Amino acid sequence: MKKAYLAGPEVFLADALDIAQAKQALCSAYGFEGLAPLDGEVTTAGGPEALAGAIYDKNVAMIRRSDLVIANLTPFRGLVMDPGTAFEIGFACALGLPVFGYANTDAGHFRRVADAGPLRPRPGRPEVQEDADGLAVEDFGLFENLMIDVPIRRLAGTVDTGAVPRDRLYGDLSVFERCLARAARTLSRG
Amino acid sequence: MKKAYLAGPEVFLADALDIAQAKQALCSAYGFEGLAPLDGEVTTAGGPEALAGAIYDKNVAMIRRSDLVIANLTPFRGLVMDPGTAFEIGFACALGLPVFGYANTDAGHFRRVADAGPLRPRPGRPEVQEDADGLAVEDFGLFENLMIDVPIRRLAGTVDTGAVPRDRLYGDLSVFERCLARAARTLSRG
Repeated sequence: MKKAYLAGPEVFLADALDIAQAKQALCSAYGFEGLAPLDGEVTTAGGPEALAGAIYDKNVAMIRRSDLVIANLTPFRGLVMDPGTAFEIGFACALGLPVFGYANTDAGHFRRVADAGPLRPRPGRPEVQEDADGLAVEDFGLFENLMIDVPIRRLAGTVDTGAVPRDRLYGDLSVFERCLARAARTLSRG
Repeated sequence: MKKAYLAGPEVFLADALDIAQAKQALCSAYGFEGLAPLDGEVTTAGGPEALAGAIYDKNVAMIRRSDLVIANLTPFRGLVMDPGTAFEIGFACALGLPVFGYANTDAGHFRRVADAGPLRPRPGRPEVQEDADGLAVEDFGLFENLMIDVPIRRLAGTVDTGAVPRDRLYGDLSVFERCLARAARTLSRG
């Protein structure tokens, strides 16, 4: 049974264990073994930095023994995704693992940035829209930074997205399940 | 001469080419060849998705021929770093490359989240502070998510940080230069 590393910021919720177990049960239903990076399982004799190191080592080892990654790309503390999850996607891609992605919002990166504040055309290059910091807003029709979307889309065709109740923004699993179904279909073809 | 991949969201600025050239000049002064991922160099016959794919391939190929990464972790469109840069750090770590990190702000992750809105103790676990979404706020004394900080700190000891003028938040190179000096010292010991 293929092992799916379950990346995402829902590990920071109070009910992270329940969510992880629910994700694992869904994984089983689609023919995967779900590996959930639960930081509460890690203990060390050292201080915070030793604990951080032990969690890092545990997560990286778990990715290395996985066959695929399913990543939660829901925006985290701002307009972009959790950087820990982005790190893990990059790590998995370098190992050649297939990565699938989902998010509990429909708004792609360009729309999220445009909704957050006015954009302006770049002086001399009006086809480029800038945010208030003068940063070009990527407009490739993607959900996230292209480094995240491209490897996911090449394999899976898309990032699965959907709207969920606001109070379940990180823990709702309906879009996760669609992504899981896509992973099962995609990998059974392969 | 070791090749340093120059990761960071300053590629989205209008003067990205000038900044990249200034970074490369500093790299030379510290004994590195700086490889800058400038997306404007990439052209394709296809549409936006083909262009995104070509940029991805160019960046990944550039990381694969690098000997180290120097990454700009300055918060991007919210409280966390650019996910494209986080992807690249993960990719580089999986390849075994040394990664150095800097940011143009002194505030670490916990302080950034606390400054953005009130935290509350997690019910039943008062040692954990939650944000408004109920997500635990990591409090390891780190600059970013531990998946980013841990590999950088193990090698370099720290993430270099410093305050810069607000209008040069992404393009100021004074902290970058400190990070570059640290990379040169660290790798010359190695």
